[in-house]
Amino acid sequence: MPKLVQYADAPAEVRAVYDEIKAARGIPDVTNFWKAIANHPPTLRRTWDSLRDVMGPGALDPLTKELLYLAVSAANGCEYCTASHTASARSKGMTREMLGEVIAIVGMAAETNRLAETWRVPLDKFYEQLP
Amino acid sequence: MPKLVQYADAPAEVRAVYDEIKAARGIPDVTNFWKAIANHPPTLRRTWDSLRDVMGPGALDPLTKELLYLAVSAANGCEYCTASHTASARSKGMTREMLGEVIAIVGMAAETNRLAETWRVPLDKFYEQLP
Amino acid sequence: MPKLVQYADAPAEVRAVYDEIKAARGIPDVTNFWKAIANHPPTLRRTWDSLRDVMGPGALDPLTKELLYLAVSAANGCEYCTASHTASARSKGMTREMLGEVIAIVGMAAETNRLAETWRVPLDKFYEQLP
Amino acid sequence: MPKLVQYADAPAEVRAVYDEIKAARGIPDVTNFWKAIANHPPTLRRTWDSLRDVMGPGALDPLTKELLYLAVSAANGCEYCTASHTASARSKGMTREMLGEVIAIVGMAAETNRLAETWRVPLDKFYEQLP
Amino acid sequence: MPKLVQYADAPAEVRAVYDEIKAARGIPDVTNFWKAIANHPPTLRRTWDSLRDVMGPGALDPLTKELLYLAVSAANGCEYCTASHTASARSKGMTREMLGEVIAIVGMAAETNRLAETWRVPLDKFYEQLP
Amino acid sequence: MPKLVQYADAPAEVRAVYDEIKAARGIPDVTNFWKAIANHPPTLRRTWDSLRDVMGPGALDPLTKELLYLAVSAANGCEYCTASHTASARSKGMTREMLGEVIAIVGMAAETNRLAETWRVPLDKFYEQLP
Repeated sequence: MPKLVQYADAPAEVRAVYDEIKAARGIPDVTNFWKAIANHPPTLRRTWDSLRDVMGPGALDPLTKELLYLAVSAANGCEYCTASHTASARSKGMTREMLGEVIAIVGMAAETNRLAETWRVPLDKFYEQLP
Repeated sequence: MPKLVQYADAPAEVRAVYDEIKAARGIPDVTNFWKAIANHPPTLRRTWDSLRDVMGPGALDPLTKELLYLAVSAANGCEYCTASHTASARSKGMTREMLGEVIAIVGMAAETNRLAETWRVPLDKFYEQLP
Repeated sequence: MPKLVQYADAPAEVRAVYDEIKAARGIPDVTNFWKAIANHPPTLRRTWDSLRDVMGPGALDPLTKELLYLAVSAANGCEYCTASHTASARSKGMTREMLGEVIAIVGMAAETNRLAETWRVPLDKFYEQLP
Repeated sequence: MPKLVQYADAPAEVRAVYDEIKAARGIPDVTNFWKAIANHPPTLRRTWDSLRDVMGPGALDPLTKELLYLAVSAANGCEYCTASHTASARSKGMTREMLGEVIAIVGMAAETNRLAETWRVPLDKFYEQLP
Repeated sequence: MPKLVQYADAPAEVRAVYDEIKAARGIPDVTNFWKAIANHPPTLRRTWDSLRDVMGPGALDPLTKELLYLAVSAANGCEYCTASHTASARSKGMTREMLGEVIAIVGMAAETNRLAETWRVPLDKFYEQLP
Repeated sequence: MPKLVQYADAPAEVRAVYDEIKAARGIPDVTNFWKAIANHPPTLRRTWDSLRDVMGPGALDPLTKELLYLAVSAANGCEYCTASHTASARSKGMTREMLGEVIAIVGMAAETNRLAETWRVPLDKFYEQLP
């Protein structure tokens, strides 16, 4: 286990980010993810700024963004991230039924991705201009 | 390139699946993906049945399901599937702005997944009962 | 495309390996894979020695070894390796029916792997002493 | 850890699948994998039906199918699946010597897959028509 | 192929980033990577800012940073990124001998990663406090 | 957990490799990795010989080689290998600052790899002759 940088022991630059996260999320303490990457303060700052941008208001609603983040984390096999974003998605309205459907898609896509790649399916003409 | 099984050359069991796909999607011909996996008819039948179930009506709306499928395919690096589901998502209402946000999430999640795993972040207590 | 080291242009240490490969496989020229990694002669020598050991006679028969190599290459999404080992497997007796079943397993395993990881399935007691 | 759906607490549709699995495998209780995915009954049903098809009798014998499933699960890094299929393979005749050779192939293929992709090896002419 | 946003057609916010990249790198035009992600201007800005931070002066020298970026891109199988960072590494002093050694490590690590995971090697006591 | 082959219980061929490793590294006992793969003596011998070659003196210095091995293992998500090579890198001079920069690159590269692949960025002309 890495050294988790607790607020009380953190240098000013780290506390500043912790304060922003706590205020933005309305929580009393940051999660272990933040405490771990705080071992490299530039990464902590950059990651928080980026996540705030990527997950902020946009064309997609907040719940959809969390479901996407959850699905990608599951596809990448990151246990911590999958758990963390499952919790976030729940807090934004994801039901157990939705979770089951998300995981079903993660599994099904993994399968068809392998089938498409292994059979070396050539792109259909009408796909060539994508995305 | 694999042999793509065209409707005209297909055995009855394959044509039956092609007919179902065309009817369900309102298209005149199936895409290369189906023509390639048709090289193994049991896989063709099983994949169509499964996709119909997974992507059918449920707690998540059709566009959200397509966005998830697109994101997972992108995370898994399957070029064909990413293109195919980009097209499907567009037909269900995905705008270019949404696409940019989906890809941003695919990228950001890949990054935080690696950070979380490499720093070996321990699960916070309140995550342990998940999903 | 990398510079492919042709026999005629190769230094002695590379030609030595090419000769061994050609003799062992009964072929007039090595494939592009060998010509590419020959750009780093130590890697060429080490890879040939290792492959000869791993794919040589053992508890598993040659066709089974090729099927395994094909499946893993497909799981890892290596287009070149999948094609190369499909050819090898065919030369050792793989039928089109077998190929369809191998790819079906690659796809199905990708799916259940994701389901097991995402649902965070705990190891059953009787699995704990494995492998 | 997810909620594992025990037989005693399961709805009828889940018990039906559990009964089929237990009968087919001659076991008194299903493993944790099934109890976890049972949280989404449609996924439970679909996965059991698919696995029965994919792993059923075919051109490849049962042990070969298990070895392939084990190798792909190992390539994908799924700890649960690797353990589960190691157990299945053993029950179908895999010796410790065979296991060592399977894992050696999983490792060797991972290496040559990376070499082939990184050196950007172009497909040899005689591979282009594959699979 | 995606629409590549050329300087002449770019909105002001995109041109601003292009100008910064060209000035920082002393090049007359940005590469296709920037022109592609410019389809989503927030991603373009965020990515440039982040890369500048991550690859800027630090405890590691510029060549080492490029070698690392190249190795990770190769491990992840991204053809574009591997080519792009091979070029950058060359411009910072990477010789062909070094390249061969980097690729050898990418391959060897892929192999031992799979062996360690598949044999489920438990962490030695003296590793437990890492990183 | 696999059976870890202790020196005292090991056959002669395994002890021979253990002796070489201990002598080369100046350690009293080999780590769990070696004890686990020793379950298949040919793999133990081949892996040690290969690692000695790949990580031996060359155009890259020993610390750079360890940093690369660490980064690739992190990219591949191998917890054991990441920990093991973090320890090796530290013993060869890696500071905590360097570690933070390595992990930052592992994360950033994961992100740009996904962006490049998902936007299907075409290779720039001047990249086509690489590596």
